Amino acid sequence: MMEKIESIKECGGNLNRYVHNSIFCKTKMTFSVYLPPKAQVEKVPALYWLSGLTCTDDNARIKAGAQRYASELGIALIFPDTSPRGDYVPDFKERYDLGQGAGFYVNATQSPWAENYQMYSYITEELPKLIEDNLPILINKKSISGHSMGGHGALICALKNPKMFASVSAFAPICNPTNSPWGKSCFKTYLGEDESKWLQYDATWLIKNGCKVHNILIDQGLSDEFYEKEQLLPENFREACHEKNQSLNLRFQEGYDHSYHFISSFIGEHLSYHAKYLKK
Amino acid sequence: MMEKIESIKECGGNLNRYVHNSIFCKTKMTFSVYLPPKAQVEKVPALYWLSGLTCTDDNARIKAGAQRYASELGIALIFPDTSPRGDYVPDFKERYDLGQGAGFYVNATQSPWAENYQMYSYITEELPKLIEDNLPILINKKSISGHSMGGHGALICALKNPKMFASVSAFAPICNPTNSPWGKSCFKTYLGEDESKWLQYDATWLIKNGCKVHNILIDQGLSDEFYEKEQLLPENFREACHEKNQSLNLRFQEGYDHSYHFISSFIGEHLSYHAKYLKK
Repeated sequence: MMEKIESIKECGGNLNRYVHNSIFCKTKMTFSVYLPPKAQVEKVPALYWLSGLTCTDDNARIKAGAQRYASELGIALIFPDTSPRGDYVPDFKERYDLGQGAGFYVNATQSPWAENYQMYSYITEELPKLIEDNLPILINKKSISGHSMGGHGALICALKNPKMFASVSAFAPICNPTNSPWGKSCFKTYLGEDESKWLQYDATWLIKNGCKVHNILIDQGLSDEFYEKEQLLPENFREACHEKNQSLNLRFQEGYDHSYHFISSFIGEHLSYHAKYLKK
Repeated sequence: MMEKIESIKECGGNLNRYVHNSIFCKTKMTFSVYLPPKAQVEKVPALYWLSGLTCTDDNARIKAGAQRYASELGIALIFPDTSPRGDYVPDFKERYDLGQGAGFYVNATQSPWAENYQMYSYITEELPKLIEDNLPILINKKSISGHSMGGHGALICALKNPKMFASVSAFAPICNPTNSPWGKSCFKTYLGEDESKWLQYDATWLIKNGCKVHNILIDQGLSDEFYEKEQLLPENFREACHEKNQSLNLRFQEGYDHSYHFISSFIGEHLSYHAKYLKK
């Protein structure tokens, strides 16, 4: 069961916000959905958007500027939260890159995180079923994209479920978290000391170990401070794709940073990319 | 003198933020400018965007989605702050609709506000001169728009300076502040008890008293809570325009609220409208 708590008209469609009690995350979860005008008369395909560190469902819907393209293309946008939340959900308030707002789209195995931090199953199982059962969204017509931690999330969700998603793209994704400071710290906390357990959530490792999708689109700004700090490591991902003949369109964008201003500059191209596959 | 404190690449152009010591506001003022790609090779026209209550220069540049249109059309966007700010600038912290963030684009005459709250002169004199002296912006090629309190600001600035602005538009503007709760309260505080002194900043009164521009575009959502609370009063403005043969395209938009989701739905049409006049 999900409850609609907000509905705002935008670009002829509706930007709705819902809450529901998550079975996997064992807490109340919030998400937003943009339904394009076409959804008033028939079921439409959906693009899942996974946001980055510190974000909720709200950031991308305000800042990315995706709704106008989704409206024109007749695609729904799904904006999940980035972690379980609530007073009884474990957190690490001193750090923005761990705990609430930083679920990293993995299923945690370590105490006390494992109880609620089951974002991988939430995104790939629970949320799509909830949405397809309750909203005018086509089953088996979904794509996935995201930014930074959410770009990592989009890549691993697609690579681990190649039949579930028609297409995948990412903005400045954490491509190789088992080699990045953010990824190492979070994976150790959520998944434990045994690094072999981390690999199933590392896009570069997944490619190296045989996961494959038909194509991947990635945009990476060259003035992105986190790229410079080697948090994102797209070259490692590119190398793995090259080794394994994985089709990849990795575009380095001169002068762009890590912000939503970068995303808004290219979101239209990403929407068009996904539309091509979603409308097949 | 102005100092650039930030520059973010967006849609091929640059979103810059500046600070300067304002002569009129007697404090350090912040503003943002989006320079489209075309500004790298020649001077471009500019659209001034005046934001609403509680906003800074940041809200519209993040939420309105105007940059992609400005990039295509070769128009700069100017995002001023909505009031003077600073520890020594008078404020009314208990209220969002008075003091810092709520300058109402008037020149205050009452103590202690008069010292800093000179937003009308700041917007129509100081800021354009500063910008045209320091940036690749064409002189005498500017238009103005805004939202809510900023829509009021756009209307009065254009009506009082018909030769300065090539065109004017507004989203959900406070059209008749001397008859709205927000306007009455602020005008009394900033301009004193004598209501006759308020009229020069009331768009409806300005039209009734002979101010005229070639055309005005206004969008007003019909599910806007502040429209419902009679803060905006577009009908009064329409009636004054009708009486005085002022050309007005007032569009009531079914289902839209007062938020930036409403603005983002129609900002492209407003940019196209202004481009028509700016490129003459």
